Amino acid sequence: MSTENNLLSIFALGGLNEIGKNMYAIEYGDDIVLIDCGNKFPDESLLGIDLIIPDISYIIENKDRVRALIVTHGHEDHIGGVPFFLKQVNVPVYATSFTLGLIEIKLKEHRILRESELIDINSDSVVQIGEMNISFFKVAHSIPDCLGIVFNTPDGTIVHTGDFKFDLTPENNERPDIHKMAAIGNKGVLLLLSESTNAERPGYTPSEQMVGKNLEQILMKAKRKVIVSTFASNVSRIQQVVNANKKTDRKLALLGRSMVNVAKVAMDRGYLTIPKDMLIEPRDINELPPEMVTILCTGSQGETMAALSRLSTGNFRDVEILPEDTVILAAGPIPGNEKNVTSIVDNLYKLGAHVIYGSGSSSGMHVSGHGYQEDLRLMLTLMKPKYFIPIHGEYRMLHHHRMLAESVGVEEGNTFILKNGDVVDIENSIARSNRTVPNGNTYVDGVDVGDMEFVLRDRKKISEDGMLMIIIPMNKQEDKVLADPEFISRGFVDQNFSELRKGMNRITIETINELHEANRYSWNVMKKQLKRAITQYVKERTRKEPMIVPILMDI
Amino acid sequence: MSTENNLLSIFALGGLNEIGKNMYAIEYGDDIVLIDCGNKFPDESLLGIDLIIPDISYIIENKDRVRALIVTHGHEDHIGGVPFFLKQVNVPVYATSFTLGLIEIKLKEHRILRESELIDINSDSVVQIGEMNISFFKVAHSIPDCLGIVFNTPDGTIVHTGDFKFDLTPENNERPDIHKMAAIGNKGVLLLLSESTNAERPGYTPSEQMVGKNLEQILMKAKRKVIVSTFASNVSRIQQVVNANKKTDRKLALLGRSMVNVAKVAMDRGYLTIPKDMLIEPRDINELPPEMVTILCTGSQGETMAALSRLSTGNFRDVEILPEDTVILAAGPIPGNEKNVTSIVDNLYKLGAHVIYGSGSSSGMHVSGHGYQEDLRLMLTLMKPKYFIPIHGEYRMLHHHRMLAESVGVEEGNTFILKNGDVVDIENSIARSNRTVPNGNTYVDGVDVGDMEFVLRDRKKISEDGMLMIIIPMNKQEDKVLADPEFISRGFVDQNFSELRKGMNRITIETINELHEANRYSWNVMKKQLKRAITQYVKERTRKEPMIVPILMDI
Repeated sequence: MSTENNLLSIFALGGLNEIGKNMYAIEYGDDIVLIDCGNKFPDESLLGIDLIIPDISYIIENKDRVRALIVTHGHEDHIGGVPFFLKQVNVPVYATSFTLGLIEIKLKEHRILRESELIDINSDSVVQIGEMNISFFKVAHSIPDCLGIVFNTPDGTIVHTGDFKFDLTPENNERPDIHKMAAIGNKGVLLLLSESTNAERPGYTPSEQMVGKNLEQILMKAKRKVIVSTFASNVSRIQQVVNANKKTDRKLALLGRSMVNVAKVAMDRGYLTIPKDMLIEPRDINELPPEMVTILCTGSQGETMAALSRLSTGNFRDVEILPEDTVILAAGPIPGNEKNVTSIVDNLYKLGAHVIYGSGSSSGMHVSGHGYQEDLRLMLTLMKPKYFIPIHGEYRMLHHHRMLAESVGVEEGNTFILKNGDVVDIENSIARSNRTVPNGNTYVDGVDVGDMEFVLRDRKKISEDGMLMIIIPMNKQEDKVLADPEFISRGFVDQNFSELRKGMNRITIETINELHEANRYSWNVMKKQLKRAITQYVKERTRKEPMIVPILMDI
Repeated sequence: MSTENNLLSIFALGGLNEIGKNMYAIEYGDDIVLIDCGNKFPDESLLGIDLIIPDISYIIENKDRVRALIVTHGHEDHIGGVPFFLKQVNVPVYATSFTLGLIEIKLKEHRILRESELIDINSDSVVQIGEMNISFFKVAHSIPDCLGIVFNTPDGTIVHTGDFKFDLTPENNERPDIHKMAAIGNKGVLLLLSESTNAERPGYTPSEQMVGKNLEQILMKAKRKVIVSTFASNVSRIQQVVNANKKTDRKLALLGRSMVNVAKVAMDRGYLTIPKDMLIEPRDINELPPEMVTILCTGSQGETMAALSRLSTGNFRDVEILPEDTVILAAGPIPGNEKNVTSIVDNLYKLGAHVIYGSGSSSGMHVSGHGYQEDLRLMLTLMKPKYFIPIHGEYRMLHHHRMLAESVGVEEGNTFILKNGDVVDIENSIARSNRTVPNGNTYVDGVDVGDMEFVLRDRKKISEDGMLMIIIPMNKQEDKVLADPEFISRGFVDQNFSELRKGMNRITIETINELHEANRYSWNVMKKQLKRAITQYVKERTRKEPMIVPILMDI
């Protein structure tokens, strides 16, 4: 039974209507527990932005009530915001050993490792925070040691699945805790938050083991070097490459900073086993016969600075792709990356390599880490929640997930399709959503962190039609133009620029004279008028709208 | 037998290692015949560019030898460059009636319709140009009245397939001329140019009729308005919507400028039949019961200004999407457009609509117009060419097409994988490729047409980190700074800008003084030094590299 004043509230600060920057919050009375703090990578419209993280102004406002950040697993969309978050809200971080290893790399880079409190948990841990009793269960995904979370509160049980699929034969024998999930469901779940990434795809996700079998066959057949590109964090897949490599007596080199870093964390903490004499340094590759070499590298998403991209254009020191080498893209392209990936495939073919690629699992070299529709139905069936919030997905995914929930017994009206910031409040076991907390995107641009709205607007404008500056040397006291205006452009050009300049010169002088005669001396008015007049003139003549920047120089 | 001096040459000015801007040339002795002149749409890296068309400087140089432009069909990647081309090289354009109808719309917009010579041909036409005897054959594709071309020269026969698939049950009964193709092959083909778009996809392309059956079922079941979005040029698909509409007694409204334009051309020229009483105006939609209305609209590729996008955000005058309406995306997303399309799907779900979408033919509402591997093998088998040039595709597609050719008998070494500009010369029936003609991308940016390289470089630079101008009022004769420099930024911001300004001020003065003392008075040197010093200072402090523009004002 609920204590009189305690309200149980659930909301997201990121992860709804988007893939990325996951961050969820459970509030019970005076205590706030946060789940995950991810980033999202900007698309091309966010010119020059490095990262997007959740706007945490609500959390900063309620800093003294925040007790913990629990991280379900180590993917960027779940941990990428952690250093930025901890700099503002320094609370203990709970996660499994592998996840903590990846977080530590980030905290080191941001130089805040020492002052951060990291607490190593596993699926048997129990954490008590205020009146919340928090326990965990293992889920299978595409990175080691992933957790689902159970919040037992006096008002009922809330379950957060983390990212998951039901792989019954995972490479690493870390089977999902199906019995534990069933027990949780039997005791009664008031509300389930479950991830929705593959809610549009029918059937069950294939097992990671499928990739292992195919890898082995390719390695057997290959007559020269084999280059396997995959996500560095997919340790199971790396282990499968190692296993296949052992059977075919090849050496293994790791290329790419994150591949080396993550493999180190995984080996140090017991998640990855590579025989000592298998590993070689990249510079030793050329000393071995090519049929004895396998290379594991980053860049499966077509990232221009990553190893695979540089290999495909012959720009990697020490290593060269040669005719009859085999290159395996053991990862599907994330939506938006298709073009970069296929351009790498083109370049690899030009080098004469055999290339194994394909979207989804069509190449046999990739399976998704996110459950398909039947996986999602199984989770809903095990948990039997009264209320349901589909999370971690674009709107259409949340929509399909709701239909799946209703197909296995969640009552119509009991699924909440939320936006980031929408709060579900539970009182007397009745859930309602009718308030919102501040939320949004925070941009990271070099050392700056903020909303950057007007900076982005300027970049966008200039990127389309360039920029045209009009510099007018004036005497402010006498309101007199001292010399002809100077016109300087960047990213803007016109075939008849000298003629255009003459016209702009005329318009500038006319505009200033008109204002002068009208006794409207304000420089701000003058700038505005100049901007308007020049914009119109340039648009008429060139059909372009560069950003016009009039600069009145007081000399 | 060849006349002594006549060389037979084949090359592409666009369409190789890319999807788009198709343009091919056949030269025999003194005569040049061009095939297609398409455009390509810029990706996000080409900031502000409207269109890409082939660089035709080689053609302009050899203007007096160009006899004709033959256009295989009316898609943008085959006709989009025509008006720009004709403005520089005014030769007769040969195409079928429908293709000419679409070209005319473009020539009208560019105000050159009157001076252009358009020659209406069909698959039975024969055109003699110099010693080239040119004939045609029907192919099936996703737009009406498509041609393949046969060039009979004294040195042998060259065949260009155009874009095609082997649809044996096309909606419009325009079956591909398989008997004619077989006869051409039997007479002997020296060289085949065949399109490669789907060379990676196994099997045969499904028939357009599949879409018709599925459309009919959806229209039968729908209880309210149905909105079908597809390519305006896919007249067969539009005809199938009309046919299904007739059976279900619905009215039809056309939305979007190109849908209205293309439907008009198609109806005027007999390619599309819509019963007079079926068509209604958009403003009349709301006066009919929703179950009596079907809407055909543009925007299936997620284009932000097209009808579907505006409908999905409630920004279309006269027409609103309401809960329980059905929206069909009857076109697969072209690579690169996936994100825009899925964001429209999200918005449609938010409006409460039923949405039928999916990539490839998975939704049952789209089939490709380009032949899959078996279609391509069939063409190669029918034509039995000695030499083969795979065209119309990215490198990996050309590569796979070569393997298909070899699998049906083209000898190893007889396939040329070319780049744009690479020429295949044929002498005494032996083909060689060892020279290149000028080629490249020409950008259309407002009224400007050219290479724009440095303009784009500037836009790119500014779009990433913005721009910082340093304006220094000087007396040139005395080489003296007259006032403090002024710093103006756009698209660049720093949290401590006032401090940054102080530092930059100091560096500016120091740099000028140093040069002054060293007696290096050149303003160009001064600008370069300033740019270098400020760039370095700003990068160290902000980790950003805005474009630095020092402006020395002579007052």
